[in-house]
Amino acid sequence: MTRKVAIGLVHHPVLDAQGAIVTTAITNLDVHDLARSARTYGCSDYFLVHPITAQRELVLRICDHWTNGSSGKRIPDRKEALALVRAVPSLADVYAALGGRDAIDVWVTAAREVAPPISLAEGRARIATDGKPVLVVFGTGWGLAPAVIDAADETLQSIKAGHPTGYNHLSVRAACAITLDRLLGL
Amino acid sequence: MTRKVAIGLVHHPVLDAQGAIVTTAITNLDVHDLARSARTYGCSDYFLVHPITAQRELVLRICDHWTNGSSGKRIPDRKEALALVRAVPSLADVYAALGGRDAIDVWVTAAREVAPPISLAEGRARIATDGKPVLVVFGTGWGLAPAVIDAADETLQSIKAGHPTGYNHLSVRAACAITLDRLLGL
Repeated sequence: MTRKVAIGLVHHPVLDAQGAIVTTAITNLDVHDLARSARTYGCSDYFLVHPITAQRELVLRICDHWTNGSSGKRIPDRKEALALVRAVPSLADVYAALGGRDAIDVWVTAAREVAPPISLAEGRARIATDGKPVLVVFGTGWGLAPAVIDAADETLQSIKAGHPTGYNHLSVRAACAITLDRLLGL
Repeated sequence: MTRKVAIGLVHHPVLDAQGAIVTTAITNLDVHDLARSARTYGCSDYFLVHPITAQRELVLRICDHWTNGSSGKRIPDRKEALALVRAVPSLADVYAALGGRDAIDVWVTAAREVAPPISLAEGRARIATDGKPVLVVFGTGWGLAPAVIDAADETLQSIKAGHPTGYNHLSVRAACAITLDRLLGL
């Protein structure tokens, strides 16, 4: 890839099943799986966005256990993945860490499309050409709040699985993996 | 797709970090994530292979909670995914459920290639042409035991992520999602 690509997983503001704005809890395997996918596909950073200090501390404890703790010795590969993890309170902090909002392209993902999207093939082509670093943002719960989507530069087209009924209920762990594979895989 | 495709997740016989044959524990999110990916990509069945009765009962309790229990009401989409789940003691039971070993093509996955593999593109092309139903087998732990790989019809090439160092440490949840997307996605 030509451009630097980072990913973010947002726990607030996201939607619940009724469409209300909520804050979701950190899920242990989201920390691991997205870090492992990010590292495998050569991403620069994996931001876990959570406004609650105790939840960010939980992320750091997980990373510490798998870096300096006993599990770090048992599975050294995991350490390299978790080294990409950054726990921050808000998307504004993500932007700041990457050089500021104007310095990056922000692409959001949505299981259901809420704006004219760009295809993953188009995203792949853009990453392969010169430009700003790209931040790909995933939501937890029932997806990113409209304000996050409105503030992005692009919405990525939802994954087309080809099920005859259009059924699409991928986990964020699966959706992130497939998205990175389509954007960056060989 | 033209052929029926099923997936299997094997907990025995698989390897541990030292290469010994072990039995791994059922992981809750493996039940959910692989079922959701399987359903999204139109697979016929998702077999969880575990020799221990109590572990298979755990799978059934998880499925029941998300089908008939309170979570089934909260997230109805999940029900459709978990309806694909079959908990069986051995791969022989998987073969039997699909009409017998000779009635199916068995493709195994390995993070590191252990036999001349077929590419995922070749697998995709084969699924699109007439033939036996395909069973794609994933391992837990440090991967499928050699005996499972030797007994398969094909080994699928490991996912090429393109990381300059060749780093590949995807979770089985991510690897299954990417494999199904490459074999079956639009």
